[in-house]
Amino acid sequence: MTARIAMLILLMNAPALALASPFPADGPLAKAPGLGIHIGTLAPGRYDAITDVDGVRVGHVTHIQGDGKLVPGTGPIRTGVTAIIPRTDVWHKKVFAAAWPLNGNGEMTGTIWVNESGFLEVPILLTDTLSVGRVDDGVVSWMMQRYPQIGIEDDVPLPVVAECDDGYLNDMQGRHNSAEDAVAALEAAAGGPVPQGSLGAGTGMASYGFKGGIGTASRVLSSKDGGYTVGVLVNANNGSDRRAPLVIDGVPVGQAFGSEVSLAPLRTHSIIVVVATDAPLLPDQLHRVAQRTALGLARTGTSALDQSGDLVIAFSTANIVPHYPDQRTFKATVLDHSYINPVFRATVEATEEAVINALLAAKSMTGRDGHSVSALPHDRLLQILHKYGR
Amino acid sequence: MTARIAMLILLMNAPALALASPFPADGPLAKAPGLGIHIGTLAPGRYDAITDVDGVRVGHVTHIQGDGKLVPGTGPIRTGVTAIIPRTDVWHKKVFAAAWPLNGNGEMTGTIWVNESGFLEVPILLTDTLSVGRVDDGVVSWMMQRYPQIGIEDDVPLPVVAECDDGYLNDMQGRHNSAEDAVAALEAAAGGPVPQGSLGAGTGMASYGFKGGIGTASRVLSSKDGGYTVGVLVNANNGSDRRAPLVIDGVPVGQAFGSEVSLAPLRTHSIIVVVATDAPLLPDQLHRVAQRTALGLARTGTSALDQSGDLVIAFSTANIVPHYPDQRTFKATVLDHSYINPVFRATVEATEEAVINALLAAKSMTGRDGHSVSALPHDRLLQILHKYGR
Amino acid sequence: MTARIAMLILLMNAPALALASPFPADGPLAKAPGLGIHIGTLAPGRYDAITDVDGVRVGHVTHIQGDGKLVPGTGPIRTGVTAIIPRTDVWHKKVFAAAWPLNGNGEMTGTIWVNESGFLEVPILLTDTLSVGRVDDGVVSWMMQRYPQIGIEDDVPLPVVAECDDGYLNDMQGRHNSAEDAVAALEAAAGGPVPQGSLGAGTGMASYGFKGGIGTASRVLSSKDGGYTVGVLVNANNGSDRRAPLVIDGVPVGQAFGSEVSLAPLRTHSIIVVVATDAPLLPDQLHRVAQRTALGLARTGTSALDQSGDLVIAFSTANIVPHYPDQRTFKATVLDHSYINPVFRATVEATEEAVINALLAAKSMTGRDGHSVSALPHDRLLQILHKYGR
Amino acid sequence: MTARIAMLILLMNAPALALASPFPADGPLAKAPGLGIHIGTLAPGRYDAITDVDGVRVGHVTHIQGDGKLVPGTGPIRTGVTAIIPRTDVWHKKVFAAAWPLNGNGEMTGTIWVNESGFLEVPILLTDTLSVGRVDDGVVSWMMQRYPQIGIEDDVPLPVVAECDDGYLNDMQGRHNSAEDAVAALEAAAGGPVPQGSLGAGTGMASYGFKGGIGTASRVLSSKDGGYTVGVLVNANNGSDRRAPLVIDGVPVGQAFGSEVSLAPLRTHSIIVVVATDAPLLPDQLHRVAQRTALGLARTGTSALDQSGDLVIAFSTANIVPHYPDQRTFKATVLDHSYINPVFRATVEATEEAVINALLAAKSMTGRDGHSVSALPHDRLLQILHKYGR
Repeated sequence: MTARIAMLILLMNAPALALASPFPADGPLAKAPGLGIHIGTLAPGRYDAITDVDGVRVGHVTHIQGDGKLVPGTGPIRTGVTAIIPRTDVWHKKVFAAAWPLNGNGEMTGTIWVNESGFLEVPILLTDTLSVGRVDDGVVSWMMQRYPQIGIEDDVPLPVVAECDDGYLNDMQGRHNSAEDAVAALEAAAGGPVPQGSLGAGTGMASYGFKGGIGTASRVLSSKDGGYTVGVLVNANNGSDRRAPLVIDGVPVGQAFGSEVSLAPLRTHSIIVVVATDAPLLPDQLHRVAQRTALGLARTGTSALDQSGDLVIAFSTANIVPHYPDQRTFKATVLDHSYINPVFRATVEATEEAVINALLAAKSMTGRDGHSVSALPHDRLLQILHKYGR
Repeated sequence: MTARIAMLILLMNAPALALASPFPADGPLAKAPGLGIHIGTLAPGRYDAITDVDGVRVGHVTHIQGDGKLVPGTGPIRTGVTAIIPRTDVWHKKVFAAAWPLNGNGEMTGTIWVNESGFLEVPILLTDTLSVGRVDDGVVSWMMQRYPQIGIEDDVPLPVVAECDDGYLNDMQGRHNSAEDAVAALEAAAGGPVPQGSLGAGTGMASYGFKGGIGTASRVLSSKDGGYTVGVLVNANNGSDRRAPLVIDGVPVGQAFGSEVSLAPLRTHSIIVVVATDAPLLPDQLHRVAQRTALGLARTGTSALDQSGDLVIAFSTANIVPHYPDQRTFKATVLDHSYINPVFRATVEATEEAVINALLAAKSMTGRDGHSVSALPHDRLLQILHKYGR
Repeated sequence: MTARIAMLILLMNAPALALASPFPADGPLAKAPGLGIHIGTLAPGRYDAITDVDGVRVGHVTHIQGDGKLVPGTGPIRTGVTAIIPRTDVWHKKVFAAAWPLNGNGEMTGTIWVNESGFLEVPILLTDTLSVGRVDDGVVSWMMQRYPQIGIEDDVPLPVVAECDDGYLNDMQGRHNSAEDAVAALEAAAGGPVPQGSLGAGTGMASYGFKGGIGTASRVLSSKDGGYTVGVLVNANNGSDRRAPLVIDGVPVGQAFGSEVSLAPLRTHSIIVVVATDAPLLPDQLHRVAQRTALGLARTGTSALDQSGDLVIAFSTANIVPHYPDQRTFKATVLDHSYINPVFRATVEATEEAVINALLAAKSMTGRDGHSVSALPHDRLLQILHKYGR
Repeated sequence: MTARIAMLILLMNAPALALASPFPADGPLAKAPGLGIHIGTLAPGRYDAITDVDGVRVGHVTHIQGDGKLVPGTGPIRTGVTAIIPRTDVWHKKVFAAAWPLNGNGEMTGTIWVNESGFLEVPILLTDTLSVGRVDDGVVSWMMQRYPQIGIEDDVPLPVVAECDDGYLNDMQGRHNSAEDAVAALEAAAGGPVPQGSLGAGTGMASYGFKGGIGTASRVLSSKDGGYTVGVLVNANNGSDRRAPLVIDGVPVGQAFGSEVSLAPLRTHSIIVVVATDAPLLPDQLHRVAQRTALGLARTGTSALDQSGDLVIAFSTANIVPHYPDQRTFKATVLDHSYINPVFRATVEATEEAVINALLAAKSMTGRDGHSVSALPHDRLLQILHKYGR
């Protein structure tokens, strides 16, 4: 294997900024509310991020290196890894979880066991398609460091690694996300504000013909509805062969842009959606929550294209599923199904906004062979929204 | 069982009207395009209806009888039956099919076998929740009339009957849809324009706080994309506890209406979606198509509430699955997956428009205990759409 | 509809018999252990029946009338209804549940909602294929009697009705199981010993070329394994076109019988399996339990033929899921997954024995057109088992 | 990463031996029929192996190195890789396929796409649990060698890699199956007789307390039933915590052995099942075939334990699904469902025999920390079978 010199950027989570408006309109922490775009009727959490669910941490490793003509296996490099840790020591304190493919042209490893057991016991890693094996290997390394009896006296972990295709900008054949990168992203994981856009696994992604990548949003229910938080993080690489379908807050933004921003013949289509909540949901209820993300994605214009890996995983931190329990049974708190609708609404809204936030935070990028993807211009977007009565 | 005198209205399919604009804006054939509302980018078929798929027939039986205070088991009656026949002699010439629940708080009988076999061999009947057994029984009668060896030398049919709850307007305990009504709806089934709104199974339904019921729409692909037709028929009873979520063509119509039209405390939530196409799809591809209807429903504002039976069935008339074949194998034409995206887009668009058409065609209705549901006022709707740049 | 005079036999559950060996070898309470056939290694419960799970009740209605040539719609009649009530007032105190089709050429209504909600809130009814609608209607009647606000202020029930095809012996076109029969079977439901064989929904059934029908068995775990009970009830109509596959306790009984007992050209193939347990299982765990019944069925020789409706439903009485709860959340007791294996083993063993018990309890029967099905001869069976080292 | 010196044994497929009896009773080609054990009633194919399905190839890489105390990351090593190639150039000539988990405590990557698309376009690799990532990476390398435009102008492959836990004998933390090993196993793949037992991915596996590993068997239908071949390959590591459940041809062999062969406290439980056929089956039909393997496994005594990854994939070589097709549609040959039962029977029988063949071919092995697993003694097995009338 050729040697590799990676520019490793550990984007440490920046400290929360003190703002008049709580959410910025630009930069990696850009949020739709910062631009006056309010999706739905529920309020976002403190960071408008998946980390608003207590204990959830996110870390990124970003690789941006080289320019010009593609040398397969060498570069240019536009890729990365994003890690989501449901809670500290998720191996011993598992979270109920469920995974669901809206359209399964993609990979999210480990989900056979998630859906059989009803729980998640490992972190969730996002990366590019051809690096899945290496990142999977890194998760194993990281787990063995923490739990040295894995595979000896302890059970074995089945990593959850999900991919999108960044090959329009990135030398994907180089598989530039290594096992060590997976470890680094996990080590970098932190709570608080989550940097978004063209970093981590989102580095080389595009969405609806604009630069995409990582986006996140959250909703907090009223105390009447339980006060639960729902946080969503996406790696938005979907709908990217065409701009026309893009809808923001009901406005046909993609059609309005038309050809005024050049659209490259992108090859990529997928979106990974991670939902976290502290609502006390059972696995089958989390399956229902996972399905609701499709409704949020639909409101951004997707038809869930054949080439798209639209893969969803949802987990709840409310209950602790023990590893090797002392007792045969444990008590779980369960949200009665007749109270679940606000959680569904929060999921739909947070998913819709997370995609928009990815578009707002991402910056224009040029990659291999001069391929270029433009960021969504904020000012022009606001003009269009205004024209349509927002 | 108490005697029952039903006002049986067989709404025969009216002959196609010659119009300057092909689609009317009012009445049971009302269509969004007739009001200048064009959902998506694909063109509707001749009737903008599920019957644009060659061979598909629709029939209604409507029961409207009595007023005033509910006498359980007697009335007032606001209910009916709608039948969709995929093609003549579907028993011997089965269609590939798949069923999928977006949210399974409802019943669509017969779908275990549809999903195991990959085909549909019976008609699809829609009715109210408590009448499912009787309508099921009627389908058996109708099948035995046509195929007298059923249960003797021939196989047995497993009827497909789907329900929504019309109990806000209707004396549901009366189960006023009989086995004979199911037969009558099947006998009434015809091609051509499909009357919509508050008739057939849609008689007592409500949607997003307005009067709902049966709606249908279709899309025809360009010859470049295969020239296939996708037709959708819905029984829209969803989202009906609240008006706010309603979105039409991206515009927050429900919020704009606010309280200007009174909203009754409706009890009902479900939607049945039937997709027909002549695109040559295999069962697993039809499962994917069925899932895309969720994306169309999402664009009307749904969060797929817990109380909602959002049940979908999709079938393709392109191939004939034989009953008792002479030969071990048969040839099927298969749409390559890389060409399926236009079918997905057509499904999303036709589903979205079918819900809107249900709202446009339905008339205000008062039922049991003076419960009343208002129709969506067309003029006010157009004002709102205009305000939002349409 | 033609008038119908039904011979209604309410087989009231007989009082438990005092026996030296706890289980009889003959008659409707016949059990494999009564013949010295011990399936697996776990102990059966007091009645070796699904009713060993506290609170579970079973009731039968049997129709046997007429002989000779089939007059479609009239007779001869060999059919019935069996009702399983998970617990008193299951509407208000729902049980966690899951349904699964091993092979879905059959109908079990109501399971879309069971699998969406994770609970069961209605009784389970078994009957013949063409009577499903009428029995469904009867369940609605029975529910409305108990809960008069159904469909008015209360929710609506979605009955669970499962069918097998008894058309080889029975005039199935007559649909001789009425709504009233469903009510009667529910009224007859009781705990204690469960009569088996050719009665209730099992009246006209055949299994592996012998007379089949209702069978039940149970297993009780050691206190070390939690002391839980698993009970299974089947309506065995499977594998019935051929005798050869039948295996009992690993012995190829079907092959050994060869042609010594005449085999009629049977038309029927299905099996319904109901699993009850007091182990505290969540819905997704009950789905796993439901799947284990396939392993028990396999040990009786099945290949789950295409024409077979091999449909399974499993429920747990350990937790109470409230109807209209006062509080947003409730506490559920959950069996940790690492302790579930004994429940799996109990399910496999009880399913295997339930099929055998159906064969042991059933009596030879002649039905329409002189069609005749022989009971499994006990003495010859024991000879064969002895020859194979049992 | 520490350097690694692997004893790489490429077990080239031996030439077919000319035998009086076509199948040997001992050695890596050992087959049940060679010992006079005939499972079921259908005839095996020429090699009684998955390679009897024309075009299917199998290759192994085996690592056996070191003895004594476990040095995590170093050894002793008892592991390997097995590759199954559905047909040459499966990327461009995809096979219809379906994957199904009987019990999903395990990993088979790539199956989200298999089940979404209905086809398989990559080879199937088997290995140990912690090596999944590395073997996945190797499949990517192998694919890029053959299709240099992958990730550039061509699509990206999603490898299918399935694992079992060999940690009782093997230093699993060392992840001794490298990307290069995956390539080597693929390069070694050949048709003809398939070496079985403790080699390839089966090297460190155990089954029902005996030494397990790779096993394969096939069945050929009569020309009356279409003359199709069904081949099954398993990596048998299941039921291995206890010997008692083992059943061979209906005989309780495990119980009969009792404690006469010492049973180690094994930690491993899983089984991977690969089904190949030339019967012209659609994806949904292959899903049904995959489920039938559960019935074959059940006949060997399994309860599909919680800790078990019982993962199945089935494919059919009869139709060619094109990669980038010139035409929108293609013709598929479809086996009518009413003719599928012989395929189901063949699947059940071949699965049952494949597990037995794994046990017959495997040799006793000692691994890390002196852990030892005994082979099933053939002579004693025959005694037991004889005692039970075989």
